[in-house]
Amino acid sequence: MSVLVFGHKNPDTDSICAAIAVADLKSKLGLDCKPVTQGELTPESKFVLDKFGLSAPETVTSVAGQKVILVDHSDLAQSPDDLKEAEILGIIDHHKLGDVTTPNPLECWIWPVGCTCTVIKAMYDFYGVELPKNIAGAMLCAILSDTVIFKSATCTEDDKKACEALAGIAGVSDITSLGMEMFKVKSAVDKDTPRDLIFRDYKDFSMGGSKVGIGQLEVVDLSIVEPVKDALYEEMKKVKEEGGRNAVYLMLTDIMKEGTELLVLADDPEPVKKAFGKPVEGTSVWLDGVMSRKKQVVPNFEKAYG
Amino acid sequence: MSVLVFGHKNPDTDSICAAIAVADLKSKLGLDCKPVTQGELTPESKFVLDKFGLSAPETVTSVAGQKVILVDHSDLAQSPDDLKEAEILGIIDHHKLGDVTTPNPLECWIWPVGCTCTVIKAMYDFYGVELPKNIAGAMLCAILSDTVIFKSATCTEDDKKACEALAGIAGVSDITSLGMEMFKVKSAVDKDTPRDLIFRDYKDFSMGGSKVGIGQLEVVDLSIVEPVKDALYEEMKKVKEEGGRNAVYLMLTDIMKEGTELLVLADDPEPVKKAFGKPVEGTSVWLDGVMSRKKQVVPNFEKAYG
Repeated sequence: MSVLVFGHKNPDTDSICAAIAVADLKSKLGLDCKPVTQGELTPESKFVLDKFGLSAPETVTSVAGQKVILVDHSDLAQSPDDLKEAEILGIIDHHKLGDVTTPNPLECWIWPVGCTCTVIKAMYDFYGVELPKNIAGAMLCAILSDTVIFKSATCTEDDKKACEALAGIAGVSDITSLGMEMFKVKSAVDKDTPRDLIFRDYKDFSMGGSKVGIGQLEVVDLSIVEPVKDALYEEMKKVKEEGGRNAVYLMLTDIMKEGTELLVLADDPEPVKKAFGKPVEGTSVWLDGVMSRKKQVVPNFEKAYG
Repeated sequence: MSVLVFGHKNPDTDSICAAIAVADLKSKLGLDCKPVTQGELTPESKFVLDKFGLSAPETVTSVAGQKVILVDHSDLAQSPDDLKEAEILGIIDHHKLGDVTTPNPLECWIWPVGCTCTVIKAMYDFYGVELPKNIAGAMLCAILSDTVIFKSATCTEDDKKACEALAGIAGVSDITSLGMEMFKVKSAVDKDTPRDLIFRDYKDFSMGGSKVGIGQLEVVDLSIVEPVKDALYEEMKKVKEEGGRNAVYLMLTDIMKEGTELLVLADDPEPVKKAFGKPVEGTSVWLDGVMSRKKQVVPNFEKAYG
């Protein structure tokens, strides 16, 4: 029975590619391993596997009685519910240390870098195992995804060096354009309704007595949302009225320009000016350098509404 | 302020030597580190540091507000009581994964090998940092101690290879005779009180709601402990009562016969039978081939108590 290697629930590209890579490496070191996934692949992950001719891992949600290796997580809540009934042989990760514990010694490679695949590249080197071209390509994409093409605050020098080496193995001559191609898939808005797009990543807040909704759409270029912007704004009106909200904001975040166009639909537009020092022009305001709802938008609005 | 590097409470030779080695390696990689100990050194550890001309680490029992790296453990109970108020930068270990968690990403090197110093030897190689002769000698002793000169069930090929390489660096021509010299120091029972002997290598565990203490005394021949066995048992009673423990076990491990006489003081002796398939006779039970608390005693007890 193969050892199962899997990433977290709602798997992202790192979870999928790390599982494939670790299963390859460990199998070549003599431990028969199989990559699996806890759930449906994202369009981005499908694009990556297609691009490098790799098969999607089988879906597995129960691991009782199995031997397993965790990648890209060390939290019980992100693992299968019956993980306690499996034997954990190893963890390869790049997050904070979670609440997984084991009754037996195990192998952990956990580094404070931007992506699990950066750690796995070092493991291939450490064991002197040759990296297959297609797996190197998938690992490269995973790092580009997790580090938002090196723009994320979590990106380290180790991630950049790993990408250079992986690009060499995979025969990728232009790392940035591969990253852009992948993020365009992630950014695609043409297959979703305006309502789906608003609620892709949406939260309601209570701020100084006002009910304020804030959604976020991350795209590789704002031109992608241009054709649907009017439809989004019309749909925001319905969302605002239905929920009895005082304001609905939609962050259109351009990951390459590193800023956000904030679509504004508010009973009172004054808090926007208070929060960001700029007035709304027409239906929106450009916020340079604003990428994070949690860290940059919510705290400012809370002060402005408070 | 230096990053503090330390092993578990009641430090053994691996905890001391691993702290010294990791502090050396990390400092050379640009992170200012200082090895410290949570408690008094054993006679064995003192012998090892003397032999290779190394200083004993300073004792530190509170780490609030400090940056720390843990070696040879990942359990909260084995770390300083205020570990939660420290920032954990890394864990280098060879045990089961304990209950330490972190709010931030960190660096973990945890391998299923016989000794932390085997992992650290690989880290020096990985980073291409030269190992000082005296630290190599101390690391060699730590591996010989943890693997009982390669006789322990926890000993792996990695441990043996690390010892060969470390002996080469340290200029040790006869590994076994260095090991025997060290174990004779370790075996001495005439200079310690019964309490000191119980706590020479002692750990508390929480098993299925029971508080279980397990100590281990390794000797070259069981006849060495025969004159103090009654006194040990009387002292175990005090230890059990003081700590509100449900059981206190003392492993008297004969490294030449390769087995353990387990002294048993338990509210319920049934877990012993469940764990090892043999009933307690009088105050103890002979466990043939059992050398390792970590690999042979703790997992069996955890199942039996669980």
